[in-house]
Amino acid sequence: MEKVKIIQTAHYVPDLVVSNDDLSQIMTTSDEWISKRTGIKRRHVSLGENTSDLCTKVASDLLAQSGWQASQLDLIIVATMSPDAYTPATAAIVQGNIEATNAFAFDLAAACSGFAYAFEVASQFITTGRAKKVMVLGGEVLSKVVDWQDRTTAVLFGDGAAGVLLTESDDQAAILASDLQTFGSDAAKLSAGLNQPLTSFGDFKPKQISAFAMDGHAVYNFATREVPASLKRACHQAGLELAEVDHFILHQANERIIKAIAKRLKLPLSKFAVNISEYGNTSAASEPILLDELVKQNKVKRGQIIALSGFGGGLTVGTQIIRY
Amino acid sequence: MEKVKIIQTAHYVPDLVVSNDDLSQIMTTSDEWISKRTGIKRRHVSLGENTSDLCTKVASDLLAQSGWQASQLDLIIVATMSPDAYTPATAAIVQGNIEATNAFAFDLAAACSGFAYAFEVASQFITTGRAKKVMVLGGEVLSKVVDWQDRTTAVLFGDGAAGVLLTESDDQAAILASDLQTFGSDAAKLSAGLNQPLTSFGDFKPKQISAFAMDGHAVYNFATREVPASLKRACHQAGLELAEVDHFILHQANERIIKAIAKRLKLPLSKFAVNISEYGNTSAASEPILLDELVKQNKVKRGQIIALSGFGGGLTVGTQIIRY
Repeated sequence: MEKVKIIQTAHYVPDLVVSNDDLSQIMTTSDEWISKRTGIKRRHVSLGENTSDLCTKVASDLLAQSGWQASQLDLIIVATMSPDAYTPATAAIVQGNIEATNAFAFDLAAACSGFAYAFEVASQFITTGRAKKVMVLGGEVLSKVVDWQDRTTAVLFGDGAAGVLLTESDDQAAILASDLQTFGSDAAKLSAGLNQPLTSFGDFKPKQISAFAMDGHAVYNFATREVPASLKRACHQAGLELAEVDHFILHQANERIIKAIAKRLKLPLSKFAVNISEYGNTSAASEPILLDELVKQNKVKRGQIIALSGFGGGLTVGTQIIRY
Repeated sequence: MEKVKIIQTAHYVPDLVVSNDDLSQIMTTSDEWISKRTGIKRRHVSLGENTSDLCTKVASDLLAQSGWQASQLDLIIVATMSPDAYTPATAAIVQGNIEATNAFAFDLAAACSGFAYAFEVASQFITTGRAKKVMVLGGEVLSKVVDWQDRTTAVLFGDGAAGVLLTESDDQAAILASDLQTFGSDAAKLSAGLNQPLTSFGDFKPKQISAFAMDGHAVYNFATREVPASLKRACHQAGLELAEVDHFILHQANERIIKAIAKRLKLPLSKFAVNISEYGNTSAASEPILLDELVKQNKVKRGQIIALSGFGGGLTVGTQIIRY
């Protein structure tokens, strides 16, 4: 049984920045309204680049920074709720683009917890020895999914991708604990529809895609209850006190949620980095974008304890405690 | 490290049967044309039931037949290329429906190899001891994705779901080998599109969904080359000769492909069960539907060696060699 460590982080966001003021030009909203309720000031929006394009940039960057060769990869997982297509998997496109010819590749869907879930899947493959070198990406082009006429949800989301390279650890760095939970009875609290089944054969309607529908109050209550509970379970499993965690790297859905979680756990807000003002909610990409920023800013250092925690559609929650 | 075994199989297909003759009423095609080229005589088409509904029926049946309680499940994976929604994951909806409150749940997308890939993911979790009782489902409502105006692809697909319960083995039953490969450089050979990215901000077009596009010749060549290669690698890994496999349970994409694979491997066609005439190509559901039929017909028996092999969009291939 191998220990698992993060070798490299990277992220990429598309060039176009859409500010709250920009949004107020196309819908009845305002910078004050959005930033007060969410902490979001702007988001990056993809023009022409699909999820696989964002992920390919991250994948290439991960390889360039780490010195790994594409051919050394055994497995590529893309966590996404906005894949390029029904088929092929976004991960397969990335695998082809970077010519990782020895890697098998698939997508994993667990909404905003997707990165945490994919991270756990990857770590199983390394633990068993089935895979040695694994790339886990979270990527989203949510701008193609949102209804830009719906000011209650369109303002919340952004596009981006990020990821990590994982391998067996030869030092103290390790995933110390993991806690994944799903609350499917609350599935309808946060949804974004796809084609609906036929209702009669021969009556072939145009493909119906519905946009985001969210019970914001329910999701807020869920997140502020279940993320602290997941963090506590994961720390207990790791044999650590919450206070020993150096950085809480939470999914960036709403700054209010992060503040409420810090308060509920009686932890200093300074341990909860926030970058939602710049990116909005990038779903499966949000944790690894923030992780990469903190690593590149030398705020997350080798030997420190970090907690990664995702939450959202499913409803789902997923936490990893990691000695970086 | 635990060995992994299949405890239970089950499948479900929607009631409506659409024959080739039925299709010839709505498009320029014929029973002779379809059945000669594909082996397909009819397919089941879902009216109103979405992928999670089909999967929930299979999940309930798996629990009822096995005697397992929903609360005992640790993990539910749904392999699908036609999920209910962008979010929540279809697996989360199933988890909620069957009240598997202790299971975490996610979807895996690897097209027609999805079941083989999900099976391998599940087996990692059991091998590490991270999960004891796992449900792996393959489910598709492809009738909501296909373009019913396109006679070259609409005739190929069907709806259905099936799955297995997996746990650690306390006897000779075991997964003996696994071989997963992805050929993303051929991703465009078999695709079904989703929403495309914006091309300019402010120009919010209706959501664009494209239907299946397939280079049938390339996919045929791929499958008849790579499935035999994967079966050989997996058998070698298991320390078995191909001739020792009792049943080759292949993805049912086209009867011609299956015949060509048997011929290429110089194996009797009698070892390659075929049910495509009844169901068409049900993608991630096709292997477990066939497996369940063979188990229920007492053709697949405990102690026998079976090879499960999926192939398709990605392009992907995935094989498991199992002592049932």
